[in-house]
Amino acid sequence: MSRLRIHNFAISLDGFGTGEGQSHDAHFGHAGKKLHEWMFATPWWQSGGSGGVDDAFVRQHETEIGAEIMGAGKFGHPGWHEDPAWSGAWGPNPPFHTPVFVLTRHTRRPIELEGGTTFHFLDAPPAEALEAARRAADGRDVRLGGGPTVIRDFLAAGLVDHMHVVVVPILLGRGVRLWDGLEGLEQDYVVESTSSPSGVTHVTFTRAGS
Amino acid sequence: MSRLRIHNFAISLDGFGTGEGQSHDAHFGHAGKKLHEWMFATPWWQSGGSGGVDDAFVRQHETEIGAEIMGAGKFGHPGWHEDPAWSGAWGPNPPFHTPVFVLTRHTRRPIELEGGTTFHFLDAPPAEALEAARRAADGRDVRLGGGPTVIRDFLAAGLVDHMHVVVVPILLGRGVRLWDGLEGLEQDYVVESTSSPSGVTHVTFTRAGS
Repeated sequence: MSRLRIHNFAISLDGFGTGEGQSHDAHFGHAGKKLHEWMFATPWWQSGGSGGVDDAFVRQHETEIGAEIMGAGKFGHPGWHEDPAWSGAWGPNPPFHTPVFVLTRHTRRPIELEGGTTFHFLDAPPAEALEAARRAADGRDVRLGGGPTVIRDFLAAGLVDHMHVVVVPILLGRGVRLWDGLEGLEQDYVVESTSSPSGVTHVTFTRAGS
Repeated sequence: MSRLRIHNFAISLDGFGTGEGQSHDAHFGHAGKKLHEWMFATPWWQSGGSGGVDDAFVRQHETEIGAEIMGAGKFGHPGWHEDPAWSGAWGPNPPFHTPVFVLTRHTRRPIELEGGTTFHFLDAPPAEALEAARRAADGRDVRLGGGPTVIRDFLAAGLVDHMHVVVVPILLGRGVRLWDGLEGLEQDYVVESTSSPSGVTHVTFTRAGS
Protein backbone atom coordinates (compact mmCIF):
# COMPACT_ATOMS: atom_id res chain seq x y z
CA MET A 1 0.00 0.00 0.00
CA SER A 2 1.36 3.40 -1.02
CA ARG A 3 1.07 5.77 1.94
CA LEU A 4 0.88 9.56 2.06
CA ARG A 5 3.57 10.83 4.45
CA ILE A 6 4.66 14.16 5.90
CA HIS A 7 8.19 14.59 7.27
CA ASN A 8 10.13 17.33 9.07
CA PHE A 9 7.28 19.79 9.03
CA ALA A 10 8.30 22.41 11.58
CA ILE A 11 5.87 24.61 13.51
CA SER A 12 6.31 27.09 16.33
CA LEU A 13 4.94 26.33 19.79
CA ASP A 14 2.03 28.60 18.91
CA GLY A 15 1.28 26.53 15.80
CA PHE A 16 2.59 28.55 12.85
CA GLY A 17 4.11 26.59 9.95
CA THR A 18 5.39 29.73 8.29
CA GLY A 19 5.76 33.34 9.36
CA GLU A 20 4.15 36.46 8.00
CA GLY A 21 5.53 38.37 4.99
CA GLN A 22 6.80 35.62 2.69
CA SER A 23 8.92 36.89 -0.18
CA HIS A 24 11.72 35.89 -2.54
CA ASP A 25 14.30 36.59 0.18
CA ALA A 26 12.23 35.35 3.11
CA HIS A 27 10.75 31.99 2.21
CA PHE A 28 9.31 31.60 5.73
CA GLY A 29 8.52 35.28 6.26
CA HIS A 30 9.52 36.78 9.61
CA ALA A 31 10.27 33.25 10.91
CA GLY A 32 13.56 33.42 9.01
CA LYS A 33 15.57 30.28 9.77
CA LYS A 34 14.19 29.84 13.28
CA LEU A 35 11.93 26.92 12.39
CA HIS A 36 14.76 24.91 10.86
CA GLU A 37 17.87 25.46 12.96
CA TRP A 38 17.40 21.98 14.51
CA MET A 39 17.65 20.55 10.98
CA PHE A 40 20.72 22.56 9.94
CA ALA A 41 22.52 21.11 12.98
CA THR A 42 22.13 17.48 11.85
CA PRO A 43 24.83 15.51 9.97
CA TRP A 44 22.14 14.90 7.34
CA TRP A 45 22.26 18.59 6.46
CA GLN A 46 26.01 19.15 6.78
CA SER A 47 28.95 17.29 8.26
CA GLY A 48 29.38 17.56 12.01
CA GLY A 49 26.56 17.86 14.47
CA SER A 50 24.79 15.27 16.55
CA GLY A 51 23.68 11.99 15.03
CA GLY A 52 20.91 11.68 17.58
CA VAL A 53 17.13 11.78 17.50
CA ASP A 54 16.86 14.85 15.22
CA ASP A 55 19.08 13.17 12.65
CA ALA A 56 17.16 9.89 12.89
CA PHE A 57 13.88 11.67 12.20
CA VAL A 58 15.17 13.94 9.47
CA ARG A 59 16.49 11.05 7.37
CA GLN A 60 13.06 9.44 7.07
CA HIS A 61 12.28 12.23 4.63
CA GLU A 62 13.71 10.22 1.73
CA THR A 63 13.04 6.56 2.37
CA GLU A 64 10.70 4.79 -0.03
CA ILE A 65 9.32 8.01 -1.54
CA GLY A 66 8.24 7.91 -5.18
CA ALA A 67 6.65 11.35 -5.59
CA GLU A 68 5.99 14.60 -3.73
CA ILE A 69 2.99 16.90 -3.58
CA MET A 70 3.60 20.52 -2.60
CA GLY A 71 1.63 23.76 -2.46
CA ALA A 72 2.24 26.75 -4.68
CA GLY A 73 3.65 28.63 -1.67
CA LYS A 74 6.44 26.09 -1.27
CA PHE A 75 7.31 26.11 -4.97
CA GLY A 76 7.88 29.85 -5.00
CA HIS A 77 7.33 33.20 -3.36
CA PRO A 78 4.03 34.98 -4.08
CA GLY A 79 3.97 35.98 -7.76
CA TRP A 80 6.29 33.25 -9.10
CA HIS A 81 3.68 32.32 -11.69
CA GLU A 82 4.32 35.63 -13.45
CA ASP A 83 7.93 34.59 -14.10
CA PRO A 84 7.97 32.09 -17.01
CA ALA A 85 11.56 31.05 -16.15
CA TRP A 86 10.84 30.22 -12.47
CA SER A 87 11.67 26.57 -11.78
CA GLY A 88 11.70 26.56 -7.98
CA ALA A 89 14.20 27.73 -5.38
CA TRP A 90 16.38 24.61 -5.44
CA GLY A 91 18.69 25.22 -8.42
CA PRO A 92 19.34 22.91 -11.39
CA ASN A 93 19.40 19.69 -9.28
CA PRO A 94 16.58 19.85 -6.70
CA PRO A 95 16.69 17.50 -3.69
CA PHE A 96 13.50 15.61 -4.63
CA HIS A 97 14.75 13.18 -7.34
CA THR A 98 11.15 12.15 -8.12
CA PRO A 99 8.12 13.63 -9.83
CA VAL A 100 6.80 16.61 -7.84
CA PHE A 101 3.21 17.77 -8.14
CA VAL A 102 2.73 21.48 -7.49
CA LEU A 103 -0.85 22.43 -6.61
CA THR A 104 -1.65 25.75 -8.23
CA ARG A 105 -4.32 27.56 -10.17
CA HIS A 106 -1.53 28.75 -12.47
CA THR A 107 -0.65 25.54 -14.26
CA ARG A 108 2.13 25.35 -16.83
CA ARG A 109 3.97 22.64 -18.79
CA PRO A 110 6.10 20.20 -16.76
CA ILE A 111 9.70 21.22 -15.94
CA GLU A 112 12.27 18.45 -16.06
CA LEU A 113 15.46 19.13 -14.10
CA GLU A 114 18.61 17.17 -13.25
CA GLY A 115 18.65 14.27 -10.82
CA GLY A 116 15.21 12.90 -11.57
CA THR A 117 13.07 15.83 -10.42
CA THR A 118 10.20 16.79 -12.73
CA PHE A 119 7.73 19.45 -11.60
CA HIS A 120 4.14 18.88 -12.71
CA PHE A 121 1.52 21.58 -12.18
CA LEU A 122 -1.96 20.59 -11.12
CA ASP A 123 -5.15 22.47 -10.35
CA ALA A 124 -6.95 19.69 -8.50
CA PRO A 125 -8.52 18.87 -5.14
CA PRO A 126 -6.47 16.79 -2.65
CA ALA A 127 -7.85 13.34 -3.50
CA GLU A 128 -7.32 13.83 -7.22
CA ALA A 129 -3.80 15.18 -6.75
CA LEU A 130 -2.96 12.21 -4.56
CA GLU A 131 -4.22 9.84 -7.23
CA ALA A 132 -1.94 11.43 -9.83
CA ALA A 133 1.04 11.35 -7.46
CA ARG A 134 0.40 7.71 -6.55
CA ARG A 135 0.40 6.72 -10.22
CA ALA A 136 3.74 8.50 -10.64
CA ALA A 137 5.17 6.94 -7.45
CA ASP A 138 4.73 3.49 -8.92
CA GLY A 139 3.99 1.64 -5.68
CA ARG A 140 6.20 3.70 -3.41
CA ASP A 141 4.94 6.28 -0.90
CA VAL A 142 3.99 9.87 -1.65
CA ARG A 143 5.40 12.70 0.44
CA LEU A 144 3.29 15.76 1.21
CA GLY A 145 5.80 18.59 1.35
CA GLY A 146 3.71 21.47 2.74
CA GLY A 147 3.14 24.34 3.35
CA PRO A 148 0.71 24.48 6.22
CA THR A 149 -2.39 25.23 4.16
CA VAL A 150 -1.87 22.23 1.90
CA ILE A 151 -1.18 19.92 4.85
CA ARG A 152 -4.31 21.14 6.60
CA ASP A 153 -6.38 20.48 3.47
CA PHE A 154 -5.09 16.91 3.12
CA LEU A 155 -5.55 16.21 6.84
CA ALA A 156 -9.12 17.52 6.71
CA ALA A 157 -9.78 15.23 3.74
CA GLY A 158 -8.52 12.24 5.76
CA LEU A 159 -5.77 11.43 3.26
CA VAL A 160 -2.64 11.49 5.43
CA ASP A 161 -1.24 8.17 6.71
CA HIS A 162 1.81 9.41 8.59
CA MET A 163 2.78 12.88 9.79
CA HIS A 164 5.97 14.00 11.49
CA VAL A 165 5.68 17.48 12.97
CA VAL A 166 8.56 19.23 14.72
CA VAL A 167 7.48 21.65 17.44
CA VAL A 168 10.10 24.39 17.84
CA PRO A 169 9.98 26.21 21.20
CA ILE A 170 9.50 29.71 19.83
CA LEU A 171 6.42 31.92 19.56
CA LEU A 172 6.03 33.41 16.09
CA GLY A 173 2.82 35.22 16.97
CA ARG A 174 1.68 35.50 13.33
CA GLY A 175 1.80 33.62 10.05
CA VAL A 176 -0.04 30.57 8.73
CA ARG A 177 -1.40 28.13 11.32
CA LEU A 178 -1.20 24.38 10.81
CA TRP A 179 -3.91 23.16 13.19
CA ASP A 180 -6.99 25.25 12.44
CA GLY A 181 -10.21 23.29 11.97
CA LEU A 182 -8.80 19.85 12.84
CA GLU A 183 -10.66 19.12 16.09
CA GLY A 184 -10.34 15.48 17.15
CA LEU A 185 -7.70 14.61 14.52
CA GLU A 186 -5.80 12.51 17.09
CA GLN A 187 -8.64 9.99 17.26
CA ASP A 188 -7.65 8.46 13.92
CA TYR A 189 -3.95 8.18 14.76
CA VAL A 190 -1.40 6.77 17.14
CA VAL A 191 0.35 9.91 18.45
CA GLU A 192 3.83 9.93 19.97
CA SER A 193 5.95 12.83 21.27
CA THR A 194 9.74 12.78 21.63
CA SER A 195 11.63 15.79 22.92
CA SER A 196 15.20 16.26 21.74
CA PRO A 197 18.27 17.76 23.45
CA SER A 198 18.15 20.40 20.70
CA GLY A 199 14.97 21.76 22.28
CA VAL A 200 12.47 20.66 19.64
CA THR A 201 9.79 18.01 20.15
CA HIS A 202 9.06 15.47 17.43
CA VAL A 203 5.35 14.59 17.25
CA THR A 204 4.27 11.73 15.01
CA PHE A 205 0.75 10.89 13.89
CA THR A 206 0.55 7.39 12.43
CA ARG A 207 -2.77 6.07 11.19
CA ALA A 208 -3.75 2.89 12.99
CA GLY A 209 -2.89 -0.04 10.72
CA SER A 210 -0.89 1.95 8.17
CA MET B 1 13.04 37.22 45.78
CA SER B 2 9.39 36.18 45.54
CA ARG B 3 8.75 34.76 42.07
CA LEU B 4 5.53 34.48 40.08
CA ARG B 5 5.12 30.85 38.96
CA ILE B 6 2.73 28.87 36.80
CA HIS B 7 2.46 25.09 37.21
CA ASN B 8 0.61 22.26 35.49
CA PHE B 9 -1.11 24.49 32.98
CA ALA B 10 -2.37 22.11 30.31
CA ILE B 11 -3.01 23.07 26.70
CA SER B 12 -3.91 21.08 23.62
CA LEU B 13 -1.42 20.67 20.77
CA ASP B 14 -3.37 23.40 18.97
CA GLY B 15 -2.90 25.76 21.92
CA PHE B 16 -6.23 25.83 23.76
CA GLY B 17 -6.12 26.10 27.55
CA THR B 18 -9.82 25.46 27.88
CA GLY B 19 -12.52 24.25 25.52
CA GLU B 20 -15.62 25.99 24.28
CA GLY B 21 -18.89 26.03 26.23
CA GLN B 22 -17.78 26.33 29.84
CA SER B 23 -20.56 25.72 32.36
CA HIS B 24 -21.22 24.53 35.90
CA ASP B 25 -20.98 20.91 34.75
CA ALA B 26 -18.20 21.42 32.21
CA HIS B 27 -15.46 23.49 33.80
CA PHE B 28 -13.25 23.09 30.71
CA GLY B 29 -16.08 23.15 28.16
CA HIS B 30 -15.97 20.52 25.44
CA ALA B 31 -12.41 19.60 26.52
CA GLY B 32 -13.95 17.64 29.40
CA LYS B 33 -11.18 15.81 31.27
CA LYS B 34 -8.95 15.39 28.23
CA LEU B 35 -6.46 18.10 29.23
CA HIS B 36 -5.87 16.56 32.67
CA GLU B 37 -5.83 12.79 32.30
CA TRP B 38 -2.03 12.82 32.60
CA MET B 39 -2.46 14.45 36.03
CA PHE B 40 -5.17 12.07 37.25
CA ALA B 41 -2.77 9.18 36.52
CA THR B 42 -0.08 10.44 38.94
CA PRO B 43 0.35 9.19 42.53
CA TRP B 44 0.07 12.86 43.53
CA TRP B 45 -3.58 12.79 42.47
CA GLN B 46 -4.48 9.32 43.71
CA SER B 47 -2.63 6.24 44.88
CA GLY B 48 -1.19 4.03 42.15
CA GLY B 49 0.14 5.30 38.85
CA SER B 50 3.66 6.09 37.75
CA GLY B 51 5.96 8.14 39.94
CA GLY B 52 7.86 9.35 36.90
CA VAL B 53 8.30 12.66 35.14
CA ASP B 54 4.61 13.69 35.23
CA ASP B 55 4.53 13.16 38.99
CA ALA B 56 7.79 15.06 39.49
CA PHE B 57 6.43 18.06 37.63
CA VAL B 58 2.97 18.01 39.17
CA ARG B 59 4.30 18.18 42.73
CA GLN B 60 6.10 21.48 42.12
CA HIS B 61 2.65 23.04 42.23
CA GLU B 62 2.82 23.40 46.01
CA THR B 63 6.42 24.04 46.97
CA GLU B 64 7.20 27.44 48.51
CA ILE B 65 3.91 29.02 47.44
CA GLY B 66 2.46 31.72 49.68
CA ALA B 67 -0.48 32.96 47.60
CA GLU B 68 -2.35 32.29 44.36
CA ILE B 69 -3.82 34.60 41.73
CA MET B 70 -6.61 33.21 39.55
CA GLY B 71 -9.05 34.52 36.96
CA ALA B 72 -12.79 34.75 37.45
CA GLY B 73 -13.22 31.89 34.97
CA LYS B 74 -11.26 29.53 37.20
CA PHE B 75 -13.14 30.54 40.34
CA GLY B 76 -16.50 29.65 38.83
CA HIS B 77 -18.58 29.00 35.74
CA PRO B 78 -19.93 32.05 33.87
CA GLY B 79 -22.51 33.76 36.09
CA TRP B 80 -21.13 32.68 39.48
CA HIS B 81 -21.13 36.27 40.65
CA GLU B 82 -24.95 36.21 40.65
CA ASP B 83 -24.90 33.49 43.32
CA PRO B 84 -24.07 35.12 46.69
CA ALA B 85 -23.33 31.69 48.23
CA TRP B 86 -20.77 30.64 45.59
CA SER B 87 -17.40 29.95 47.20
CA GLY B 88 -15.61 28.10 44.41
CA ALA B 89 -15.81 24.57 43.09
CA TRP B 90 -13.44 23.02 45.64
CA GLY B 91 -15.75 22.37 48.64
CA PRO B 92 -15.20 23.46 52.27
CA ASN B 93 -11.43 22.74 52.28
CA PRO B 94 -9.93 23.94 48.97
CA PRO B 95 -6.50 22.64 47.90
CA PHE B 96 -4.81 26.06 48.05
CA HIS B 97 -4.14 26.54 51.80
CA THR B 98 -3.05 30.16 51.19
CA PRO B 99 -4.69 33.46 50.34
CA VAL B 100 -6.14 33.35 46.81
CA PHE B 101 -6.74 36.51 44.80
CA VAL B 102 -9.61 36.22 42.31
CA LEU B 103 -9.46 38.81 39.52
CA THR B 104 -12.99 39.94 38.76
CA ARG B 105 -15.06 43.01 38.09
CA HIS B 106 -17.61 41.56 40.51
CA THR B 107 -15.78 41.99 43.80
CA ARG B 108 -17.23 40.81 47.09
CA ARG B 109 -16.09 40.42 50.71
CA PRO B 110 -13.33 37.84 51.37
CA ILE B 111 -14.40 34.22 51.95
CA GLU B 112 -12.43 32.33 54.58
CA LEU B 113 -12.61 28.54 54.28
CA GLU B 114 -10.98 25.60 56.05
CA GLY B 115 -7.32 24.69 55.67
CA GLY B 116 -5.95 28.19 55.28
CA THR B 117 -7.63 29.20 52.02
CA THR B 118 -9.10 32.71 51.93
CA PHE B 119 -10.52 34.05 48.66
CA HIS B 120 -9.99 37.77 48.10
CA PHE B 121 -11.69 39.52 45.17
CA LEU B 122 -9.80 42.14 43.25
CA ASP B 123 -10.59 44.35 40.28
CA ALA B 124 -7.02 45.32 39.40
CA PRO B 125 -4.49 45.16 36.55
CA PRO B 126 -1.83 42.39 36.68
CA ALA B 127 1.01 44.37 38.33
CA GLU B 128 -1.26 45.65 41.10
CA ALA B 129 -2.76 42.21 41.73
CA LEU B 130 0.73 40.74 41.94
CA GLU B 131 1.75 43.37 44.47
CA ALA B 132 -1.21 42.46 46.69
CA ALA B 133 -0.49 38.73 46.37
CA ARG B 134 3.20 39.24 47.15
CA ARG B 135 2.36 41.09 50.34
CA ALA B 136 0.09 38.20 51.36
CA ALA B 137 2.70 35.59 50.40
CA ASP B 138 5.11 37.04 52.95
CA GLY B 139 8.35 36.32 51.09
CA ARG B 140 7.26 33.09 49.45
CA ASP B 141 6.39 32.72 45.75
CA VAL B 142 3.05 33.53 44.13
CA ARG B 143 1.35 31.00 41.88
CA LEU B 144 -0.64 32.15 38.86
CA GLY B 145 -3.42 29.60 38.56
CA GLY B 146 -4.96 30.46 35.19
CA GLY B 147 -7.09 30.36 33.10
CA PRO B 148 -5.48 31.07 29.75
CA THR B 149 -6.63 34.69 29.47
CA VAL B 150 -5.15 35.65 32.83
CA ILE B 151 -1.88 33.86 32.08
CA ARG B 152 -1.63 35.63 28.72
CA ASP B 153 -2.21 39.00 30.40
CA PHE B 154 0.54 38.41 32.97
CA LEU B 155 2.96 37.09 30.33
CA ALA B 156 2.31 40.12 28.13
CA ALA B 157 3.02 42.36 31.13
CA GLY B 158 6.38 40.61 31.66
CA LEU B 159 5.50 39.51 35.20
CA VAL B 160 5.96 35.72 35.01
CA ASP B 161 9.25 34.24 36.31
CA HIS B 162 8.57 30.53 35.74
CA MET B 163 5.95 28.77 33.64
CA HIS B 164 5.29 25.04 33.33
CA VAL B 165 2.98 24.23 30.43
CA VAL B 166 1.84 20.70 29.63
CA VAL B 167 1.16 20.09 25.94
CA VAL B 168 -1.44 17.33 25.56
CA PRO B 169 -1.43 15.63 22.12
CA ILE B 170 -5.05 16.35 21.25
CA LEU B 171 -6.62 18.91 18.94
CA LEU B 172 -9.48 20.77 20.62
CA GLY B 173 -10.16 22.95 17.60
CA ARG B 174 -11.91 25.68 19.63
CA GLY B 175 -11.83 27.34 23.01
CA VAL B 176 -9.51 29.90 24.60
CA ARG B 177 -5.96 30.09 23.22
CA LEU B 178 -2.96 30.54 25.50
CA TRP B 179 -0.38 31.88 23.06
CA ASP B 180 -2.07 34.71 21.16
CA GLY B 181 -0.10 37.94 20.95
CA LEU B 182 3.09 36.67 22.61
CA GLU B 183 5.54 36.80 19.69
CA GLY B 184 9.15 36.37 20.80
CA LEU B 185 8.28 35.44 24.41
CA GLU B 186 10.99 32.76 24.40
CA GLN B 187 13.72 35.42 24.15
CA ASP B 188 13.34 36.31 27.83
CA TYR B 189 13.41 32.72 29.06
CA VAL B 190 15.35 29.49 29.16
CA VAL B 191 12.96 27.02 27.51
CA GLU B 192 13.11 23.25 27.99
CA SER B 193 10.87 20.48 26.63
CA THR B 194 10.49 17.02 28.14
CA SER B 195 8.17 14.45 26.64
CA SER B 196 6.68 11.84 28.95
CA PRO B 197 5.69 8.19 28.39
CA SER B 198 2.12 9.35 29.10
CA GLY B 199 2.17 11.22 25.79
CA VAL B 200 2.28 14.79 27.11
CA THR B 201 5.24 17.15 26.77
CA HIS B 202 6.29 19.36 29.66
CA VAL B 203 7.54 22.76 28.49
CA THR B 204 9.16 25.08 31.02
CA PHE B 205 9.92 28.77 30.60
CA THR B 206 12.32 30.02 33.28
CA ARG B 207 13.38 33.62 33.29
CA ALA B 208 17.15 33.94 33.02
CA GLY B 209 18.53 34.58 36.51
CA SER B 210 15.30 33.87 38.37
